[in-house]
Amino acid sequence: MIKVSIFYPYRENGRFDFDYYCGKHMPLAAKHFESALKGWSVDKGLSGGEPNSAASFVAACHFLFDSVEAFQAVFAPVAAELVADIPNYTDSEPQIVISEVIVNV
Amino acid sequence: MIKVSIFYPYRENGRFDFDYYCGKHMPLAAKHFESALKGWSVDKGLSGGEPNSAASFVAACHFLFDSVEAFQAVFAPVAAELVADIPNYTDSEPQIVISEVIVNV
Repeated sequence: MIKVSIFYPYRENGRFDFDYYCGKHMPLAAKHFESALKGWSVDKGLSGGEPNSAASFVAACHFLFDSVEAFQAVFAPVAAELVADIPNYTDSEPQIVISEVIVNV
Repeated sequence: MIKVSIFYPYRENGRFDFDYYCGKHMPLAAKHFESALKGWSVDKGLSGGEPNSAASFVAACHFLFDSVEAFQAVFAPVAAELVADIPNYTDSEPQIVISEVIVNV
């Protein structure tokens, strides 16, 4: 299983609309990805490891797919639409990481 | 549900022993966290969003707990032991993020 993670870095006075993100943007992506998508989640950053420190990201999402190819096949046709929706919920610049889930207990 | 994520940033020529990490370090942590731990996973960084780009992290793990307090209660007594084990699998400096899982589909 591979995981496509999108991190929205924390910035002071940054804007992030969780209602829009969880209620509109992510369901739109999930709908486009259809059955290739094996699961998705959204994390809201709370803190770093030190008390009262800021989390490095204000929000992150994770999409699960069987393979990188399976992700690319469904993402490419809708990438422009999804990217154009980003300013509707944040002024943060997303950072993408593709990883392999090697243990899941 | 809260997630304690530990990211090991990618560095050229950095060292990371996945066998030790998944076979020794993570099971040790999971054993110490006992029933407070609701799940854990390990991700291996593959790439960034651009083709042939490096993932920002070589490895990441995620521990799930019911609350930040539940995590702190089991982590504090074993923190020194777990931190002392880090050089056995990496020379990367871990970065911790505590987040709340607000959607999980």
